[in-house]
Amino acid sequence: MEYQINGERLLQNLFTMAQFGQNEGGGIDRSLGSKADYDTREWIKSYWQDHLKVEPETDAIANLWAKHSGTEHRKPLVIGSHHDAVPDGGKYDGAMGVLIATEVLETIVEQGILLKHPLYAISFTGEEPNPYNLSTLGSKVISGRLRKEDLFSVHNRETGESLEDTIKRLGGDISSLENARIQPGELAGFLEVHNELGRHLEAQGLHLSGVSTITGIYREEIQVYGENNHAGTTMMPDRKDAFLALSDLAVGLNEIVGAYEDPDVVGTMGYVKVSPNEANIVPGSAVGIIDIRTCERKTISEIVKKLDDLTEKTEKGRRVKIKRQVLLDQPARIMDEDIINIVKENLAKLKEPENVMVSMAGHDASNMQLLTKAGMIFTRSVGGKGHCKEEFTEDADVIKAGQLALETILRMDEELP
Amino acid sequence: MEYQINGERLLQNLFTMAQFGQNEGGGIDRSLGSKADYDTREWIKSYWQDHLKVEPETDAIANLWAKHSGTEHRKPLVIGSHHDAVPDGGKYDGAMGVLIATEVLETIVEQGILLKHPLYAISFTGEEPNPYNLSTLGSKVISGRLRKEDLFSVHNRETGESLEDTIKRLGGDISSLENARIQPGELAGFLEVHNELGRHLEAQGLHLSGVSTITGIYREEIQVYGENNHAGTTMMPDRKDAFLALSDLAVGLNEIVGAYEDPDVVGTMGYVKVSPNEANIVPGSAVGIIDIRTCERKTISEIVKKLDDLTEKTEKGRRVKIKRQVLLDQPARIMDEDIINIVKENLAKLKEPENVMVSMAGHDASNMQLLTKAGMIFTRSVGGKGHCKEEFTEDADVIKAGQLALETILRMDEELP
Repeated sequence: MEYQINGERLLQNLFTMAQFGQNEGGGIDRSLGSKADYDTREWIKSYWQDHLKVEPETDAIANLWAKHSGTEHRKPLVIGSHHDAVPDGGKYDGAMGVLIATEVLETIVEQGILLKHPLYAISFTGEEPNPYNLSTLGSKVISGRLRKEDLFSVHNRETGESLEDTIKRLGGDISSLENARIQPGELAGFLEVHNELGRHLEAQGLHLSGVSTITGIYREEIQVYGENNHAGTTMMPDRKDAFLALSDLAVGLNEIVGAYEDPDVVGTMGYVKVSPNEANIVPGSAVGIIDIRTCERKTISEIVKKLDDLTEKTEKGRRVKIKRQVLLDQPARIMDEDIINIVKENLAKLKEPENVMVSMAGHDASNMQLLTKAGMIFTRSVGGKGHCKEEFTEDADVIKAGQLALETILRMDEELP
Repeated sequence: MEYQINGERLLQNLFTMAQFGQNEGGGIDRSLGSKADYDTREWIKSYWQDHLKVEPETDAIANLWAKHSGTEHRKPLVIGSHHDAVPDGGKYDGAMGVLIATEVLETIVEQGILLKHPLYAISFTGEEPNPYNLSTLGSKVISGRLRKEDLFSVHNRETGESLEDTIKRLGGDISSLENARIQPGELAGFLEVHNELGRHLEAQGLHLSGVSTITGIYREEIQVYGENNHAGTTMMPDRKDAFLALSDLAVGLNEIVGAYEDPDVVGTMGYVKVSPNEANIVPGSAVGIIDIRTCERKTISEIVKKLDDLTEKTEKGRRVKIKRQVLLDQPARIMDEDIINIVKENLAKLKEPENVMVSMAGHDASNMQLLTKAGMIFTRSVGGKGHCKEEFTEDADVIKAGQLALETILRMDEELP
């Protein structure tokens, strides 16, 4: 390799950032708008100012930017991820991608590498599920998926603070949100490094991978209408038990999805509410939310068709009415072929298998793909752990991912227009 | 019949009492300690004073008593039910039994009928499930199933008021609770009239019935331990989904119980809690409460044995751990044979089939059976509705039940020691 990142420095920065919001049990509490979110931002801006020799910028939705100039009049390349975390989350999800972006830029500045394109590092605002019910907030705003009118009425469901006030505290300004918007074609390319959050790489004995596609996500709310009845006096054949019907659908979805050989087809009922929820009353109503993920449009349609049949059968068998409502139907997002090829060639250069995989989690890169050529690099999640304090990527993998990111940015600078 | 109750007056009193706590939708909100509970008590005491020519008494747990003397030195007969209601409940559950007790006593006073035994009317405190988590409170205290030390730390889970303060507001005094206690053998007998709350009588074309047994109730809390995981990145075979396991147990219990031909075997999972209960997280833990009712001890054992097998199978199949804890194991309570026979003979006298049935709901009579010879009379619940505002017993059935109660008390006075 002609140029090398400073692996020790990268690990040290990862250690430092993990102090912000670390709770007694070792998990990270760094939700959008929290004090830890604010403190992390101050640290990032100060680090960028001191080490990247740039004046950090905060856009209207409070994404943080470090903008390094190129030698030619080109569109910018962007590299980054997010610094917020799920409650009691891990040290790698988001933070590692921001710090690898930082390390790539620091290496370039330090070693005087000349890039044709400007190179921007970004740390996105509010990528994780949060009390504002808005995930990948920063990338949704710059890609135009969320606009000013969508955000003015949003409040934190726990504290009641308006999103407008939260964003103001973080240095943004929702009233001038249009200034944060980037139009398709304004960027030359985007790269995000992230831990996998799943067990696919470990299961295959791999440490690093490119990403071919970010999964499609389909969500439905299922509402079952039965009848509240006395749990003693109501004979079994007379019951209209809404919870049994919901159970049938949960178990049925699991069977339907489990029948696919493709491991990248998954389905979950993660949210359940039963009413009146008393031990001595047959449940009269029940609500569940199902989440189905696959890259194949056709597979979603097949699963929904099977759920339609199951719903009809359940309505008859359990003597209930079932209403289903689509909450989300987000198509799979295909990563850029040029970037995938560059990542694969760089994997080979680093003596790693040229693996490319599907991301079963959503990421900011999914929104950035709407604007520009976007790519991702995944690191192994030990034990497949993600969104928990046990989340871990080995030091050697973090450093190798940093080097892979540097090589990939240098090739993107060479090859992308 | 030698003596007749005043049916019009009984219906009028039922109409009057239904005004206390009646909400806009027509349901009754008259939970223990509510203003409606207080107002109903004031009305009952005032009615008893004016019409029964007695000074109403309030015992230490705030049960209301009207004590009519007998001609001989005998132990008292007691007739009554409760005046509280479930939230948004009906006009009959409890109220009808109190007002039939009142009508029986009023008829006896008015028509100068001489009884050998003293006859007491009672309206019990807090029979229904309530925010203090204490049902059949009044009868549990007088039968010794609850003592002072059980009640001092109890608070209303909604308002935070201590049970002690609540009972004081209602005219009782928990600090002298031993005064409310009645010892086995101190009473001559107990009779309660209640609506069935189920559909058994209607299904058989019957209007009135005696009660042979009050069902046994067995409750377990089921705790499932799985693993929180990302709903996208976690492959199906890697999951430890606690909610699917709980669903298996709910559906399985329904099948096990449904296989019995005896309609008086029922089982329900009415309470369910899933954690973390997020659409994008595979549930890591789940809790359910199951309620099983039957008069047969052996049947409970059989069902629990089948649940043990199902639990083991589910632990393996869903890769989870399941802990089960018995919350309640209340045996069936057999009603007194002499009273059952008197009720049957009186049914025949009233030209009704001599039906006797199992009560699948718990009642104050269940606790009174620990103290004395206890019996119950059921009225048809139209459509089987109970614990809801649609609860209804036809006027003719109310009046006939009142007459049946009078005849039964007169025979109990004749025949019981």
